[in-house]
Amino acid sequence: MYNQAELKNLVNKAIINLSYNLEAEQLIDPVKYILSIGGKRIRPVLALMGCNLFCDKIDDAMLPATGLEVFHNFTLVHDDIIDHALVRRNFPTVHSKWDINQAVLSGDVMAFIANDCFLQAPPSCMARVFRVFNKAAVEVCIGQQMDIDFEKITSVSQDDYIRMIELKTAVLLAASVKIGAIIGGAGDKDSEFLYDFGRNLGLAFQIQDDLLDTYGDIKVFGKTPGGDIASNKKTFLLVKAIETASGKQLKHLQELFTNKEFDPEIKIKEVINLYDQLNIKDITIKVANDYINNAFSLLGKVGVTKERKNELISLANSLIGRNK
Amino acid sequence: MYNQAELKNLVNKAIINLSYNLEAEQLIDPVKYILSIGGKRIRPVLALMGCNLFCDKIDDAMLPATGLEVFHNFTLVHDDIIDHALVRRNFPTVHSKWDINQAVLSGDVMAFIANDCFLQAPPSCMARVFRVFNKAAVEVCIGQQMDIDFEKITSVSQDDYIRMIELKTAVLLAASVKIGAIIGGAGDKDSEFLYDFGRNLGLAFQIQDDLLDTYGDIKVFGKTPGGDIASNKKTFLLVKAIETASGKQLKHLQELFTNKEFDPEIKIKEVINLYDQLNIKDITIKVANDYINNAFSLLGKVGVTKERKNELISLANSLIGRNK
Repeated sequence: MYNQAELKNLVNKAIINLSYNLEAEQLIDPVKYILSIGGKRIRPVLALMGCNLFCDKIDDAMLPATGLEVFHNFTLVHDDIIDHALVRRNFPTVHSKWDINQAVLSGDVMAFIANDCFLQAPPSCMARVFRVFNKAAVEVCIGQQMDIDFEKITSVSQDDYIRMIELKTAVLLAASVKIGAIIGGAGDKDSEFLYDFGRNLGLAFQIQDDLLDTYGDIKVFGKTPGGDIASNKKTFLLVKAIETASGKQLKHLQELFTNKEFDPEIKIKEVINLYDQLNIKDITIKVANDYINNAFSLLGKVGVTKERKNELISLANSLIGRNK
Repeated sequence: MYNQAELKNLVNKAIINLSYNLEAEQLIDPVKYILSIGGKRIRPVLALMGCNLFCDKIDDAMLPATGLEVFHNFTLVHDDIIDHALVRRNFPTVHSKWDINQAVLSGDVMAFIANDCFLQAPPSCMARVFRVFNKAAVEVCIGQQMDIDFEKITSVSQDDYIRMIELKTAVLLAASVKIGAIIGGAGDKDSEFLYDFGRNLGLAFQIQDDLLDTYGDIKVFGKTPGGDIASNKKTFLLVKAIETASGKQLKHLQELFTNKEFDPEIKIKEVINLYDQLNIKDITIKVANDYINNAFSLLGKVGVTKERKNELISLANSLIGRNK
């Protein structure tokens, strides 16, 4: 069995070894750049672990796994245009290092480079693998659309928010494990359990991420808490707070998020104060934990020995900040 | 055998019948919009004719043919962002009707809607068809990159210009006929002949298009000649003129294209005057004719009866303005 660090190394090697059309230097430079500035390679590692559950050899899953990372980075390049984000993983985003036109076009070619990776899946399961990927790809676009739409409205229901992060984040993690499992030889039932494992893990991960942005330890988390509050980002915490608050508290919360004249530090402090009054931290931890428990229960149903699941359990725990 | 008009109707029906995720209205509205505002549907019609050469039933080619049109429109949506184009086929472009963010994201999802069409090719040839498409898709991105890069330099060689239009325009026409032929049951040799037929036809078509923008009859062409000159667009005519001119003529030409203070009408008149002195019109017609002759000679080699080729010959002639 391969562990997370070994798989991440293999993925990084596969990314470096991607072959590009030599005619296309200007087009490919931003592709190489975004793929080189790090990231946890969660999706390809999940795919390889999904494969490794059923099969000791993981070579067949390597290119489709790489395709998942290329696709994920394609979405980052275009999302950063949409969000006007200047920094990603402590480096300039593609459209700020080059320009918007270059980010549109170099992003586009990544979608087809990803396709090429999936087309190199083993012939016996290529169509199945590609369909799982492509369904997720469409859903990721829908999730991003919901995220954009939510920016324009003040009140979003918890259900709508969960659906948005499910589409934008969770389905690609789910598809990643499932794709690896299919290539590894899993049956339909196990592939579905693993898809749902990945989906629940993805939901827990995103909610945890929202929580850490507000309540994270700066030493562990690496950035000053409150960024999401300062930038008016819809998070599980805010959605839940607006849903829970009423009367004066609701009015105050809405004012904090609509009045642009607040000093960011004071705004963050007052919003956290309201979150505390509404018990948002505990509610959020409970919801995240429910998804985590679902995920582990689904993984438990997969028909391989417990030992084979250890690396996936360990990755899941690290993703939701339970160890390391 | 189906004729062009019948095939265009069938394609339009297939486009209308595309099924979309109902959750995604905001995302899909621009997709439906760009697919509804017309266009000649050349690529899907070429694919269906390629299929019809070898097989009376063309149903199997219908979804991949539709995928080619969806992909083509995906490139238009993103190219219009890049070119800051406000109008396409006499309608507002997607980014001017919505905004750049929407055009990026709705464009993106079209790439995956196209994928979905190719995934529904007959299982026996799906992988082959998808690879032909995907190679062309990467090449179209490279062609668009070359087009962007060429805007920034004054002198482009004829070879580089031809390579750019080959990638940006011709390879997708080539891939379209080839994909149809593969689905229709063509052998490797015939598929290659048809790919090269499409490639040569695409080159002739683009050079012809350049010619018509400057020398076209306003009654036939439907727009005032000289738009490319006014907007400093690199065309075959300009590339050839810069390559051919020397001394005073070259200096004057360069001045016309760099000095921004010229009245457009005078600029167009003077550039055409220089083109005439340099015999650019005849040279261009000759180059386009060479590609047309290549195309027809390649089509001649395809191993089906002459009668079966009639619709493809008629489409090719109409594309390069030889009839109707």
